[in-house]
Amino acid sequence: MTETFSPGLAGVTAGLTSISEVDGDGGLRYRGYDANELAQRATFEEVAWLLIRGELPSPEDLRGFVRRLHARQRLPSYLRQTLERLPGSAHPMDVFRTACSEIGCREPENQVADPVDVAETLIARTCPILLYWDRFHCARVRIQCRAGDDMLASQFLYLLHGHAPDVVDVQALNAALVLYAEHEFNASTFSARVTASTRSDFYSAVTSAIGTLRGPLHGGANEETLDLLMAYSTPQDAESGILQTLDRGDRVPGFGHPVYRHGDPRSRLLKQHAHTLAANHDADALLAVAERIEHVMANEQGLFPNLGFYSALAFHLCGIPRRLFTAVFAMARIAGWSAHILEQREANVLIRPVARYRGAEPRAFVALSERG
Amino acid sequence: MTETFSPGLAGVTAGLTSISEVDGDGGLRYRGYDANELAQRATFEEVAWLLIRGELPSPEDLRGFVRRLHARQRLPSYLRQTLERLPGSAHPMDVFRTACSEIGCREPENQVADPVDVAETLIARTCPILLYWDRFHCARVRIQCRAGDDMLASQFLYLLHGHAPDVVDVQALNAALVLYAEHEFNASTFSARVTASTRSDFYSAVTSAIGTLRGPLHGGANEETLDLLMAYSTPQDAESGILQTLDRGDRVPGFGHPVYRHGDPRSRLLKQHAHTLAANHDADALLAVAERIEHVMANEQGLFPNLGFYSALAFHLCGIPRRLFTAVFAMARIAGWSAHILEQREANVLIRPVARYRGAEPRAFVALSERG
Repeated sequence: MTETFSPGLAGVTAGLTSISEVDGDGGLRYRGYDANELAQRATFEEVAWLLIRGELPSPEDLRGFVRRLHARQRLPSYLRQTLERLPGSAHPMDVFRTACSEIGCREPENQVADPVDVAETLIARTCPILLYWDRFHCARVRIQCRAGDDMLASQFLYLLHGHAPDVVDVQALNAALVLYAEHEFNASTFSARVTASTRSDFYSAVTSAIGTLRGPLHGGANEETLDLLMAYSTPQDAESGILQTLDRGDRVPGFGHPVYRHGDPRSRLLKQHAHTLAANHDADALLAVAERIEHVMANEQGLFPNLGFYSALAFHLCGIPRRLFTAVFAMARIAGWSAHILEQREANVLIRPVARYRGAEPRAFVALSERG
Repeated sequence: MTETFSPGLAGVTAGLTSISEVDGDGGLRYRGYDANELAQRATFEEVAWLLIRGELPSPEDLRGFVRRLHARQRLPSYLRQTLERLPGSAHPMDVFRTACSEIGCREPENQVADPVDVAETLIARTCPILLYWDRFHCARVRIQCRAGDDMLASQFLYLLHGHAPDVVDVQALNAALVLYAEHEFNASTFSARVTASTRSDFYSAVTSAIGTLRGPLHGGANEETLDLLMAYSTPQDAESGILQTLDRGDRVPGFGHPVYRHGDPRSRLLKQHAHTLAANHDADALLAVAERIEHVMANEQGLFPNLGFYSALAFHLCGIPRRLFTAVFAMARIAGWSAHILEQREANVLIRPVARYRGAEPRAFVALSERG
């Protein structure tokens, strides 16, 4: 047994995948297609199909898929009751994790012939789950969960705001959903694969992924990023504030990435959308703050904005409340998680590493009555 | 970046631990103490304390710990309602996963000063959660969750059966709980550490672990083991049945282990308890079936019984229904999970391996209207 050890498994290959590739030049491709191009030219639904099935859908495939998603958006009554019972003060990721677990409890995978159906059900229900709960507790409204639009980005904004969204907002959110949909063996996807590797059910694996994404070193970072942006009213404020933060040795959210060392390829496109949104929503001051922070971080630390930085700004300008940021990430990443769970099952091996022991030496038991 | 690749990370060191050690001779120690000796001479509560805090408790420590566990056994009313609402036909692990997730949603960790309190709450509540749900749906009884006994093994059997258990049963179950409590970087513990590594909350990490343990390649195996034992009425039947199973190339549950290659040190003690239980419960025929299967598997495959094999027999002889077997494993392992979550946090590094890509080559996007 060869013992290799890398803290956090950094750089350790934990498996094979055909779903996405981070190439040596820092590009990102889904099933061979450039992720930024997909984000500009395809809907989230097309990309979800691509990730799960391996090829882009034909127009007929896509119509069938969207029809099935619509049919599954209506939440069963037990789920609406659960969402009403859970407190409005809870974290949306805790609500989503609990709802996903309860679906697995009440509609277990062993009652479904094809696991792709489970993936489609989860993709269809995530937006209604989040917004039924959010609107019930924040606005005392029981929303109808079918928005009648083909695109998740549009549905989400419609259900959140109660009116048809701007096309600029829909395009920005769609691009963000595509770019958030998949990212190789990130921690949440890897946790889903570890769970799936024991041949556990689909819902257990997605529940693991939701709980893992929730952490501030993963999906939770974009909530902190908005706090950062909102803390400053001018670029000058931002510059001196960031310099002070760095002097204290504190971490600045939204910068750097465990895989990309020279820039996050997904950030450029989100920054373009942030520009369009800022112009559309009269938010040039906020954009100027963001760009100054980017500039200071590059000069001082050589760090670049990751996907979370400009997406936090974009989400905010689309009117998405901060508390839902990580949940929007989850709503997108569920496509990637599903693809990885299916891939893990195709050629399953139990994921079971070993630990290096560095604790107490072997010692003799002492009976309770003889302990000091 | 050095690329190492081992399917399922077999033999790959994924981190440091001071909680347990599988030594080169196939022995198992918790914090330096031999696990079999702990299983014979200590209660599950003493071992849970040892795993979480690093040292065996003094008599005073143990009294305080047991007092706190008792105080936390009473389930809050929202949890009793959830357990009544969830269907009786669900899998207990799905119920436990959902209940754990809901506790995290309603009593989030950020409201608690010390994460050890979260561990103690989960250790205290697991048995009441499982048996409140089970007894409500199977016997239409709302149990009082406090059994007034110091030992989890005794409480569990008392709440399950509604009368004081035999001392032989309590000793066997206590030994099984101790031996199930911890096992280094097994898949469920590793998933808890992956979740904790994003600095997510304690409940998310335990929820991941429950869903991972649920799989038939991990905790789910002991349910299948009982089916195997019950399928044969005589040792002769068992021998020919197992030989046929092996001829078909099927897996026999309860044998072999990804870490132990020459015998599971935990099995011997459980086999002794199975002997005592069989004598006490007039079940020599079932024991003879089990021993014949062990014999055939050793001769034919060179495989030894793992912890799940004789514990399935022991659980059955203690009157624990098959459906609860994996949940009993979870009730014990929550001590190990808790210790590992706390350890992961002490010197946290995000667990984020990489994948080796072997999918489609880079290809140009094709617009929807141009797809076949």
